[in-house]
Amino acid sequence: MNSPGTLVDPSARLLELTTLVESRLAESLPGETAWPATIHRAARYSLLAGGKRIRPLLALAGAEAVSGGLEEALPLALAVELIHTYSLIHDDLPAMDNDDLRRGKPTSHKVFGEAVAILAGDALLTRAFHLLADVPAHADEALLRRRCRAMALLGEAAGTTGLIGGQVEDLESEHRRIAPEALERLHRAKTGALLRAAVLGGAILGGATEPQLGGLARYAAAIGLAFQVVDDVLDATEGAEQLGKTAGKDQAAEKSTYVSVHGLERSRQLAHELLAEALQALGPLGEPGELLRTLARRIVERRA
Amino acid sequence: MNSPGTLVDPSARLLELTTLVESRLAESLPGETAWPATIHRAARYSLLAGGKRIRPLLALAGAEAVSGGLEEALPLALAVELIHTYSLIHDDLPAMDNDDLRRGKPTSHKVFGEAVAILAGDALLTRAFHLLADVPAHADEALLRRRCRAMALLGEAAGTTGLIGGQVEDLESEHRRIAPEALERLHRAKTGALLRAAVLGGAILGGATEPQLGGLARYAAAIGLAFQVVDDVLDATEGAEQLGKTAGKDQAAEKSTYVSVHGLERSRQLAHELLAEALQALGPLGEPGELLRTLARRIVERRA
Repeated sequence: MNSPGTLVDPSARLLELTTLVESRLAESLPGETAWPATIHRAARYSLLAGGKRIRPLLALAGAEAVSGGLEEALPLALAVELIHTYSLIHDDLPAMDNDDLRRGKPTSHKVFGEAVAILAGDALLTRAFHLLADVPAHADEALLRRRCRAMALLGEAAGTTGLIGGQVEDLESEHRRIAPEALERLHRAKTGALLRAAVLGGAILGGATEPQLGGLARYAAAIGLAFQVVDDVLDATEGAEQLGKTAGKDQAAEKSTYVSVHGLERSRQLAHELLAEALQALGPLGEPGELLRTLARRIVERRA
Repeated sequence: MNSPGTLVDPSARLLELTTLVESRLAESLPGETAWPATIHRAARYSLLAGGKRIRPLLALAGAEAVSGGLEEALPLALAVELIHTYSLIHDDLPAMDNDDLRRGKPTSHKVFGEAVAILAGDALLTRAFHLLADVPAHADEALLRRRCRAMALLGEAAGTTGLIGGQVEDLESEHRRIAPEALERLHRAKTGALLRAAVLGGAILGGATEPQLGGLARYAAAIGLAFQVVDDVLDATEGAEQLGKTAGKDQAAEKSTYVSVHGLERSRQLAHELLAEALQALGPLGEPGELLRTLARRIVERRA
């Protein structure tokens, strides 16, 4: 693993970090035969189904941006991916978005049934906090304080004014038009809050100062919104094969999206404006912020 | 509020503590009009529907048993009740136990629909950890360490080897007989783990020593099992009006219970043996353990 600041191709480094994340995710849950086997098989099925691992990479890049260590940030990097995966499992349920396909595979309830899918989501959410609470025996006061702060941030991001609140609003916005401000609030909660917790939580565990956190918060707000704008553009323009999930479903559910509210061209332009804003916020961090810059570009330029 | 050790009728004191818990539970979630209102109404509907508040009382009594302060133990007391309530909401869903009645009121999905009920459960689980992670600004190293330890204990108790694992096993045990040892393991996970986290978590936040935690762990194991044995006896002998939930449903689902495995009389006898074991484990704690003794008796002698 290269140390921060080493001049390495950011793409090669992200690949290296993705491999690290994959291997630690596989270790973050009990094995498939651990009692009770059903729940561990179901939780691992969804968690280890691939995915871009954007949130863990943001957490590790957040720590690196403030010259913090990867190991310090890893519990948070895993926790945000566990929480992201739990939210996908629950959102895909028949009572919610009723989706059959996720990351190119049948959704959890299609494979394990609804009851186990609900419990697998619950298990991933619970395990996320457990990972962060499980401090090393030799933890000093600074580490304990950072863990508590990262957990509180994650609790807020995953809670009713974040992820859960956004999903409730999203369900309630079906089959009706909502105002542009309400749409932005919805997406800041549903998508932005967890991305923000990834960046800031990683930076907190990496020992960020308050001014550093201020800049990272501006970065996170911009990429959080950009992420959702690009999601809406892709949902309107790409097929299911490309996305690994049902395509065109926003339109089918008559959901308000950036595309339906602002049109396709303005949405694409908006994504690039937000990218510029994100890069600008990283200015004071200099070279250690390079991974975050690369991730911001990926979020805006991705095709799936 | 009386200080620990004051000679007060334990029943009066439990009533006083229940009132304290009720008022703090009401403050533990955003109000019904906070955005997005639906999720807060649903979460509050289930959390503030009464209930015996056994778990929070065990947490406060656990702190008092080691001469700790109530305020220190309150975040854990609230967290265990939030987690208990989330587990009831999810267990009652049509995909799981499909129950219409809980604490004498229509279940969450009956009132708010399945999607919101799932999210309300998620919200209570998330908020439980958030409450514990949210440390006061002046927190010292000892407090930070105790909070992390209590959260890790709670994460384990609520996870796949505790609450969630027990529910998976319970679902899989329908319509078949299971061995007495498997039944005990199921109930230690489904009911015992969270009761244990309440007692030990409260004691940890109250500053318990390791030997004190050893005695409390034996107490918690005994009352955890006793709680479930009594539950099974009540399900077999009491009506829905008395229980505030559907009665006789274990038999309807052909579930293995203590009553179906050991018979009614042996089950009642077992509950009293476990009570004696619990009281014996509290011996070294002396007078400060009185509330825990009273709670153990209530658990075994309750009629609902």
